[in-house]
Amino acid sequence: MAEAAMDDYVQMDEVDWVVFPEGLCSGLVEWKLLHVSPETGAWTAAFRAEKGASIARHIHVGPGEYYMTKGVMQVRGGADEGGATARAPGYGYEACNAQHDYTVFEEDSELYMTFLGPLNFTDDDGNTIALVGWREVSEAWQAAA
Amino acid sequence: MAEAAMDDYVQMDEVDWVVFPEGLCSGLVEWKLLHVSPETGAWTAAFRAEKGASIARHIHVGPGEYYMTKGVMQVRGGADEGGATARAPGYGYEACNAQHDYTVFEEDSELYMTFLGPLNFTDDDGNTIALVGWREVSEAWQAAA
Amino acid sequence: MAEAAMDDYVQMDEVDWVVFPEGLCSGLVEWKLLHVSPETGAWTAAFRAEKGASIARHIHVGPGEYYMTKGVMQVRGGADEGGATARAPGYGYEACNAQHDYTVFEEDSELYMTFLGPLNFTDDDGNTIALVGWREVSEAWQAAA
Amino acid sequence: MAEAAMDDYVQMDEVDWVVFPEGLCSGLVEWKLLHVSPETGAWTAAFRAEKGASIARHIHVGPGEYYMTKGVMQVRGGADEGGATARAPGYGYEACNAQHDYTVFEEDSELYMTFLGPLNFTDDDGNTIALVGWREVSEAWQAAA
Repeated sequence: MAEAAMDDYVQMDEVDWVVFPEGLCSGLVEWKLLHVSPETGAWTAAFRAEKGASIARHIHVGPGEYYMTKGVMQVRGGADEGGATARAPGYGYEACNAQHDYTVFEEDSELYMTFLGPLNFTDDDGNTIALVGWREVSEAWQAAA
Repeated sequence: MAEAAMDDYVQMDEVDWVVFPEGLCSGLVEWKLLHVSPETGAWTAAFRAEKGASIARHIHVGPGEYYMTKGVMQVRGGADEGGATARAPGYGYEACNAQHDYTVFEEDSELYMTFLGPLNFTDDDGNTIALVGWREVSEAWQAAA
Repeated sequence: MAEAAMDDYVQMDEVDWVVFPEGLCSGLVEWKLLHVSPETGAWTAAFRAEKGASIARHIHVGPGEYYMTKGVMQVRGGADEGGATARAPGYGYEACNAQHDYTVFEEDSELYMTFLGPLNFTDDDGNTIALVGWREVSEAWQAAA
Repeated sequence: MAEAAMDDYVQMDEVDWVVFPEGLCSGLVEWKLLHVSPETGAWTAAFRAEKGASIARHIHVGPGEYYMTKGVMQVRGGADEGGATARAPGYGYEACNAQHDYTVFEEDSELYMTFLGPLNFTDDDGNTIALVGWREVSEAWQAAA
């Protein structure tokens, strides 16, 4: 019989922050990988960003949900341009195919996020530079640890 | 063509805590429903519990992930009995079919949790009392609001 | 690092049909369990039913999709009563929470179906008799094999 | 309250086969799009291929499951090279991240397949040429219909 999936627990304050891979962000963004679900390609991470830092252009290949616990993040241009301005404590649902041309942190910020499927980082013309999914984040996390 | 799912944002400190349905817990447990995904039956909520409060016996019909932001929660008997003792800041993955006979908060606590599928609340013999999924939480949330 | 899920292949004509568990159907219904995905609780099976056979009252806890390759099946009362009359070759999407009070095969029939989450078999008042998910079907399949 | 997903039914023999988009295959491959699930990015289709036809190099971004109802398909090099030789009636589970460098039909063939997430069509160096997901298949299907 197929084996059941395993429960897991991470004491987050016993795991060090690691610099998020260059090329995927600008300014200081750090992360902790918390879980990967290889069967569906889901993964979960915490992020910490300095004021002014930003995440490079990407598309969510599947839905993602975040819980902003500190600071301010402008998503999809922010609330003034039809996107969201996430101010802690805030919750956001980024739908399958959500396009994030520019995600910027206006204050020192922290968020927790669950992802189904990879992020598709693209150039300005929409060409894929990197598909970053459960396997790529696992490899990046292990390389840093 | 089928319509894309919608992005969503909730400013969590502008939403009041609501008492979690009686019968599903003991002591004071409050919640905020943040999102439901009717297609797959996923849902997301924040919970706040007083020291000594507990959640009634239930089984996770699909996987669930939590981010403990305050306090201490004993899951599946706690770490001493093969379960998990979640101490903020902590992350937990409760696998599909995880059985939670007794979940107790040892301090005033808060957590954020994503669920795939319903919780199956059972009696001591494992008989279903209530399947609490995206539809039931939506109805409970609307009735309270 | 977490292990990737495994590819799998089943040569279906080399697997014998097995009688579907009593109590879940009436008349002769046989099945072949093809796959289970323990992480999300998904599972896949083929079914063969004799004319006049039926499936007991159940609710789809998550979405299910079927491909009818032979015969005729009345779902949710059939097309005349707002449900579907599936006539091979036919495809059906049964949404999360779809309620199937009575599913009857009007001819000798065969179908292939993928499920997310369990089926909730209930009595006439909606009380759960059996939640039949990836684990229960695995156990039933192994007991019969 | 969020709206429930809708049930759906397609009488497959009343839908015409359409030529599968050029560039994604070689030889005559036809398809019928049966369903898309925008929330998770899942989709379902039937395919018909002439002997000798093949599918271009691609990676499954999420898991996929197929039911081969006619003919023979060599997947991942076929059974002789560690892949699968799907011979009707056959069932295959292609795991998340499955890499299909060359998929060839050795006889006139038909299959039904469910997909979670897009297919990532790549060049020989693994660079993404096209991510083909629920939205792209919907657009291609509507353009052809």
